[in-house]
Amino acid sequence: MSKNIPSPAIRRLPRYYRYLGELSEQGVSRISSKELSEKMKVTPSQIRQDLNSLGCIGQQGFGYSVEQLYNEIKVIMGLDRQYNVIIIGAGNIGQALVSYQNFANRGFSFKAMFDVNPKIIGLNIHGVDVLDADDLEDYLKSNNIDIGVLALPKSNAKKMADVLINNGVKGIWNFSHIDIETKNDVVVENAHLTDSLMRLSYKLNNDFNMMDFS
Amino acid sequence: MSKNIPSPAIRRLPRYYRYLGELSEQGVSRISSKELSEKMKVTPSQIRQDLNSLGCIGQQGFGYSVEQLYNEIKVIMGLDRQYNVIIIGAGNIGQALVSYQNFANRGFSFKAMFDVNPKIIGLNIHGVDVLDADDLEDYLKSNNIDIGVLALPKSNAKKMADVLINNGVKGIWNFSHIDIETKNDVVVENAHLTDSLMRLSYKLNNDFNMMDFS
Repeated sequence: MSKNIPSPAIRRLPRYYRYLGELSEQGVSRISSKELSEKMKVTPSQIRQDLNSLGCIGQQGFGYSVEQLYNEIKVIMGLDRQYNVIIIGAGNIGQALVSYQNFANRGFSFKAMFDVNPKIIGLNIHGVDVLDADDLEDYLKSNNIDIGVLALPKSNAKKMADVLINNGVKGIWNFSHIDIETKNDVVVENAHLTDSLMRLSYKLNNDFNMMDFS
Repeated sequence: MSKNIPSPAIRRLPRYYRYLGELSEQGVSRISSKELSEKMKVTPSQIRQDLNSLGCIGQQGFGYSVEQLYNEIKVIMGLDRQYNVIIIGAGNIGQALVSYQNFANRGFSFKAMFDVNPKIIGLNIHGVDVLDADDLEDYLKSNNIDIGVLALPKSNAKKMADVLINNGVKGIWNFSHIDIETKNDVVVENAHLTDSLMRLSYKLNNDFNMMDFS
């Protein structure tokens, strides 16, 4: 698939998906760009442009079909399939992630966690076993893993990222404070919490139009 | 302060800040837009445009002064002051946040956590006391808090956000799966982990130019 979707629209996709899911649960069958605009805090014309780029065209006087739009975005985001996920680092962040039921509901299944701490190795946390980080390579050779989560201190993160990438993991969700050089078909999504907190302090100190930032 | 900085540049500010900090530690005193470009995975002309919008102009054949740029961004991001922070929800995410030394180094000081669980109330986690969520309003009346972190389940998040906002907290760092209607001068930075994971699955399923997304 390679629709030409502008990156601000891609950023908004998860939020569209959440809203449309909620609307669908409430039994709402159609929605106008104006109504979506109010929820999304983006102008109606931006909404129409976003949805156009997905190939979804609203009808005059009818708007968009909630179910159709929801399913379209689901497919575009790859949420119509299952992902096997492992977490490197069984500290607080890793433990927080496996405890979220939400991820399983979206098709992300946590298969194992890895750590270097002998006190943690062997534990079962929210149904997920903590394995020895030394065994990661062997594990990857015999298990089909789609996504590796880096939730470990900076010092070891680069090494572990290399093990993941060299053993066929295609997606990296990166909570560690390193930037990962990707190669070929490996993709990275950074979840750098410090960066997020710094953006908050930026907003606190500057005239800031929320609309601009959606 | 109200420079007209485009939002993609604002998104990149924390990363500029991290790199410049590392360069400064390494004793590097100046850097060209080309070198920054390689680190940031953004084109050199985009780098010049970003830095121009901050009021920083490089010199032909010299580039940018690392220290000057670092300090400029520090001030723009409001990292030249201290923030008092409280966390609502002392679960895994809340505990992970207070355990990050990084935040304290950037000027964010965790003053207290709040929870509804009697088993957790009264604990001290990484030096931070867990207080009763029922006492939040009183606490806010007698303490000067800049930032409230929402790290609690969706069901209570809206109520707690209202308590924060109605008692003068100006910044909300939102890990809960709700969207917050802000008013007046309250700013919100969302850290919706599910949205981040969905962006990763999007990237896994689509032709994706990393450059576009920086």
